[in-house]
Amino acid sequence: MIDRPEPREGARVLFISDYDDPNAWRRELSALLPGLDFVLWSPDIIPELVDFALAYKPPAGLLKRLPNLQAVLSLAAGLDHLEGDRGPQPHVPIVKLEDPGFARIMAEYVLAAVLRHHREFPRYAELQSRSLWTFEAPLPASARRVGIIGLGQMGLASARLLRQVGFKVSAWSRTARNPDEPAFEGLTLMSGAAGLLDMAAETDILVCLLPLTVETSGIIDEGLLSRLPQGAALVNVGRGQHIVADALVSALDRGSLAGATLDVLEREPPPAGDPLWTHPKIFVTPHVATFPRPETAAAAVARSIERFWRAAGPT
Amino acid sequence: MIDRPEPREGARVLFISDYDDPNAWRRELSALLPGLDFVLWSPDIIPELVDFALAYKPPAGLLKRLPNLQAVLSLAAGLDHLEGDRGPQPHVPIVKLEDPGFARIMAEYVLAAVLRHHREFPRYAELQSRSLWTFEAPLPASARRVGIIGLGQMGLASARLLRQVGFKVSAWSRTARNPDEPAFEGLTLMSGAAGLLDMAAETDILVCLLPLTVETSGIIDEGLLSRLPQGAALVNVGRGQHIVADALVSALDRGSLAGATLDVLEREPPPAGDPLWTHPKIFVTPHVATFPRPETAAAAVARSIERFWRAAGPT
Repeated sequence: MIDRPEPREGARVLFISDYDDPNAWRRELSALLPGLDFVLWSPDIIPELVDFALAYKPPAGLLKRLPNLQAVLSLAAGLDHLEGDRGPQPHVPIVKLEDPGFARIMAEYVLAAVLRHHREFPRYAELQSRSLWTFEAPLPASARRVGIIGLGQMGLASARLLRQVGFKVSAWSRTARNPDEPAFEGLTLMSGAAGLLDMAAETDILVCLLPLTVETSGIIDEGLLSRLPQGAALVNVGRGQHIVADALVSALDRGSLAGATLDVLEREPPPAGDPLWTHPKIFVTPHVATFPRPETAAAAVARSIERFWRAAGPT
Repeated sequence: MIDRPEPREGARVLFISDYDDPNAWRRELSALLPGLDFVLWSPDIIPELVDFALAYKPPAGLLKRLPNLQAVLSLAAGLDHLEGDRGPQPHVPIVKLEDPGFARIMAEYVLAAVLRHHREFPRYAELQSRSLWTFEAPLPASARRVGIIGLGQMGLASARLLRQVGFKVSAWSRTARNPDEPAFEGLTLMSGAAGLLDMAAETDILVCLLPLTVETSGIIDEGLLSRLPQGAALVNVGRGQHIVADALVSALDRGSLAGATLDVLEREPPPAGDPLWTHPKIFVTPHVATFPRPETAAAAVARSIERFWRAAGPT
C-alpha cells in the first residue's frame, strides 16, 4: 500500500522507463514543481491515483489501465514507442519530448562517427590488430564531402556542426527547402528522388537522419549505395529499417563501401546472427546517439504538467 | 644518365621522402616556379647538380654528399628527422616547413580522438565484440572536460576547435600565458608543475601536444596519470617519449584509465611485443595525426627556393 496524499496539492507523475534515470528526473522536476508526487512504476501502484505518465516504452497495456490519466509525457522525440498496446486510452493526449539539448547530443554523435571514418580509424584499428604499420597522408575535413539525408531538427543541427568543423556538407530533404534561410548557410541543399542519387555520387560519408515513414523505409538500398564513390562510408542514426541489410552487407563485402557506423538496427537488441551486428566492417552502438537529458528536458515537461493540472482543477 | 639542362633556368630540387607524395609536390611547386627542375632521389642523381633538397628522413649521409646544396627544405615541422647523419653539411641552412593547414589537420585528429572517447566508442566496440547490448545515456560535450598539455600552434588550434564544438577546455603551458589574449578566449589556462597536476585532477580526456624536450620527456608518468579522475582517457599526439609506458599500462590494467589513443610511439614502427602497440585498451594510429599538404605548404617552400636561388645568382 502506497501513501495517499490528502489533500492532493501536486500532480502524481508515474515514471516508466528502463532507459532513463529516475533520480535525475525526480530531482529536476521536483525543483520546478515543488508539490510534485513523483513515483516509479511498480505493481503496487494504485491506477486511480496516477495523473500523468512520464514514459518510454511502457509495458503493453499499462497506460490503458490508468483511468484518471491526464496526459502521457513521452521520454523520446519519436512516438513509435507509444504505439498500439503501449499507448494510453485514445482520448488521452500524448506530449512529445521537447529537449533543446537533444539535437545537439545527436549532432555530436554524428560528428564523432563522421570523424571516425574521415580519419580512417576503422582501417588503422584493423591494421593494428595485424601489427601492420602502414598509412596514407590524411585529408583535411575541407576536402571531405558529407551528405546528410534528412533535414529535420537533428539533421540540421548535425549538418551545421559538421560545416562548422570544416566539412563540405550537402543535405537532402524530400521536398525542396528555401536555400536563402540563414540556417542553411554554407550547406548545399538537395531534394527529390533524383537529388538523392545526385548527392550520393558526390558523397564520401553518407549520414541518415531521416524519420521512419513508408517513403523512407528501405531508402538506403542497392541503388543508393552503388551511387556512392568507391571507399565511401555510411552512418545511420535514423532507424534500422532505413537500410536494406543485404545491400549494405554486399557493398561492404565487395569493398565499394569501406565501412559503416550504425546506432540503430531493425531489432534492438539484435537477434544472434544479425549480419549487421557481427560484420567486421560495421561498428554498432546500442542506440545511444542521443538521449533526453533531465537537465535540459525537464522544463518543457514541467510546463505541460502545470498546464494540464491547472486545467483539470483541484481534485 | 639524367638530362642536364643547359643553361639552367630554374633550380634543381631533389625530393627525398618515403612518406610524401612526389607527384603532388611536383605539381604544386611547378605551378609556382615554372622553370623548376624537380627530380626524385635515385642512385643515378649527379650530386653536383642538386641545388635544393626537399626532404623527410633522408638516408644517412646523403645530404652531406651534395656539394652545391643551397638549402634543405624540411618536409616536417620538427627537424629531428634531419639530425646527425641525416643532416646536410653544417653551413647549409635548413628551412622549417610552414604549412597553414598543418595545425588544422592536427586539430581535426585531436577532435576525432577526443570524440571517440567522449562518445564511448572503445567501450561499445568491445561490447559489440561480445554481442552485448548495454549502454548508458550519453553526456553532451559541454559536460566533458578536456585538458590539453602544450599550447604551441598545434595545441592552440586543437584547444580552440574543441572549445568551438562545445567541450570544456583547459590548456597547460610550462610558463604562464596572458589569459587576455583573444586567442585564448573560452579556455582555462594553467601553467607550472603544480598547475599540471591541478589540471589533471579536473580532466576527463587528457591530450598531449607537447614538443619533445628534456623537460617534457616522460611527463605523462605515474604521478600525472594517478591525478586523473577514475575512467579518464588519454590522447597522445606529441612524441612517444612523453609517456612512461609502464605507468600507462598499469593505469589501464587497474582500470583507473579507461583507454588511450596514441598516434606516436617511442619507436616507429614499434618492435614486436611493444606493450602499447598490443594493449587492448590502446588504439594506435601510425603517426598520421598531421602531414604537410603540398596544396597548402608549397607556397612557403617556393618562396624559400626563389629567395636562395636569386641570392645565389645564375649559374
